[in-house]
Amino acid sequence: MDKTSFSNNEGKPIRCKAAVCKKAGKALVIEEIQVDPPQAYEVRIKILCTSLCHTDVTFWKIDSGPLARFPRILGHEAVGVVESIGENVDGFKQGDVVLPVFHPYCEECRDCKSPKSNWCARFADSPLSNTRRYGMASRFKDSTGEDIHHFLFVSSFSEYTVVDIAHLVKISPEIPVDKAALLSCGVSTGVGAAWKVADVGEGSTVAVFGLGAVGLAVAEGARLRGAAKIIGVDLNPDKFELGKRRVIKEMTGGGVDYSFECVGLASLLNEAFMSTRTGSGKTVMLGMEKHAAQINLGSFDLLRGRSICGSLFGGLKSKVDIPILVDHYLKKELNLDSFITHELNFEEINKAFDLLEEGKSLRCIIWMNK
Amino acid sequence: MDKTSFSNNEGKPIRCKAAVCKKAGKALVIEEIQVDPPQAYEVRIKILCTSLCHTDVTFWKIDSGPLARFPRILGHEAVGVVESIGENVDGFKQGDVVLPVFHPYCEECRDCKSPKSNWCARFADSPLSNTRRYGMASRFKDSTGEDIHHFLFVSSFSEYTVVDIAHLVKISPEIPVDKAALLSCGVSTGVGAAWKVADVGEGSTVAVFGLGAVGLAVAEGARLRGAAKIIGVDLNPDKFELGKRRVIKEMTGGGVDYSFECVGLASLLNEAFMSTRTGSGKTVMLGMEKHAAQINLGSFDLLRGRSICGSLFGGLKSKVDIPILVDHYLKKELNLDSFITHELNFEEINKAFDLLEEGKSLRCIIWMNK
Ligand SMILES: [Zn+2]
Ligand SMILES: [Zn+2]
Ligand SMILES: [Zn+2]
Ligand SMILES: [Zn+2]
Repeated sequence: MDKTSFSNNEGKPIRCKAAVCKKAGKALVIEEIQVDPPQAYEVRIKILCTSLCHTDVTFWKIDSGPLARFPRILGHEAVGVVESIGENVDGFKQGDVVLPVFHPYCEECRDCKSPKSNWCARFADSPLSNTRRYGMASRFKDSTGEDIHHFLFVSSFSEYTVVDIAHLVKISPEIPVDKAALLSCGVSTGVGAAWKVADVGEGSTVAVFGLGAVGLAVAEGARLRGAAKIIGVDLNPDKFELGKRRVIKEMTGGGVDYSFECVGLASLLNEAFMSTRTGSGKTVMLGMEKHAAQINLGSFDLLRGRSICGSLFGGLKSKVDIPILVDHYLKKELNLDSFITHELNFEEINKAFDLLEEGKSLRCIIWMNK
Repeated sequence: MDKTSFSNNEGKPIRCKAAVCKKAGKALVIEEIQVDPPQAYEVRIKILCTSLCHTDVTFWKIDSGPLARFPRILGHEAVGVVESIGENVDGFKQGDVVLPVFHPYCEECRDCKSPKSNWCARFADSPLSNTRRYGMASRFKDSTGEDIHHFLFVSSFSEYTVVDIAHLVKISPEIPVDKAALLSCGVSTGVGAAWKVADVGEGSTVAVFGLGAVGLAVAEGARLRGAAKIIGVDLNPDKFELGKRRVIKEMTGGGVDYSFECVGLASLLNEAFMSTRTGSGKTVMLGMEKHAAQINLGSFDLLRGRSICGSLFGGLKSKVDIPILVDHYLKKELNLDSFITHELNFEEINKAFDLLEEGKSLRCIIWMNK
């Protein structure tokens, strides 16, 4: 199908297929839904392909509390084409290839303008709405006319979705769409952490704790930055050998310059912290702590010149930095191909959950129409 | 007395007065001791003046465990003149004005050569010896010929002391000696934390928790770096009003860019951490945790783009950075004068302990011969 051919539905609802999560932990149900036209500052996009990230699985399982919302359309790592735009939308037009991004970038607030922050002061502190500027208002309706909840302002497990411009990046159409989808969340998060957050230096040593797609993307980012030694540590013996801080200290003559915690476990963060070099070691936490546990650090271990920081979306400002990563890919500097271990048709989307949960896939590309 | 006139004691022991700590928490006793000649890589210096730092008081009180050592000569913030040098000493000669520094800088190891670290890989991990290269060997003897313990490789509460060249900095004789003494520990630690560790930016906002000499030196360092707003928070109501993270967030529209914990309390560090701006806030811990308590941080508070780091001696490389601070003073850019709140003669040294413990002094200069 030609990416840019649309029948003219501008201003009208579209009926299309979506994979709807009706109950926590239950298989998604593919059914026809209605996608309303975009409002001011919104864009309706046709999803070309999407992939599954651990955060989808985490939210899919949450069965109580304010984060448990059903029915819901999950999915937040994808690539699409602009179908129509709402009012006050500059910089996007029908046919543009775009990445939706869960982390907002308004371009106008103090933090969006600061080179030191990617935490949009206007939007980033309210991650639980359906639509960015309209609170719980939804653009999705099921066959009975009831609202379906959005997810992380993306909801890419649908043929069409509506995304706020603060969550959308226009990219070069030259990059293959499956590779582009990787840059929508996990791989960008990892590469960004090595590049923007840690600012990994040439000739340095790096330890990566947790070797899923995000951890491997940290390693790829560190390689791009010229790291001399990259040590991978994983808890899953099917993937890589188990590393220990003592072994790391021996391998590097005193500890690594940078360590990255890519799983979301406070205990692993401590292990990462203690594997860094006294006097200058830097530790970066990339993921939500799975049990919302506190981080505990030895005060004297910190005092001895170590630092620790956290980041979301790899410290990236989406509209500025994702095009740079696309460019690195097109110049064959950034390797993305090996992150794609599986491909499925949209109808088989539930298999992607099994593959990720069993640790068999890094990224599984789900094609909407192939 | 002319600073540079010495009777020739080179290679011989010197008999002089020292204030000896004979028992934890008991008044120091001024008595005649013997100071042996410097060995290879060591310099014997005549102390001109010294001051009292909280770390002296902390160690003075420790009555058990490996840190409790008596008799001992405390004191580590001072200025002196070189009396004689041992073998293999380059860069120091009789008459040089010098600052002893508790934190080593060998100039040769990987970390001393790295611009990112001030944690000398060769020496910094063994802070408990008497002499840097000779372990428990002491250069001090009491009237019965028994060894007296050193303290932090300085032991400035003595008319003469022996210091390793890794702990000694030659400075310009133009700076008044009482101002120079301040740069030997506390003030340098604070100014360095703002300058070298946090790298405070122009127009930024800063919160300083704990307003002793170190905290006020952080504020002075932040002022030098062009900070737009500096908020002081102290727990002692006689000094400054008590600040709260909520108040700080209101005053700065969301939190400060940099916060500094200058007391050594994990709970206060948490308060400092939470007072920084989401997305970019940086917290620096400057002091030893008083109770060796663990640091607890909310994982999501960290993930939201905050960072935290620790440092000793303000991240300074002594021989490189102290002369820069001296220069700032001589150019009237760095204010040191207001840190000196009291002056005493050596015979009155025990009064300095009372003044500091009662929170009445910032720095009390103790003159050896005035
Ligand atoms: Zn994701
Ligand atoms: Zn913004
Ligand atoms: Zn001190
Ligand atoms: Zn060194």
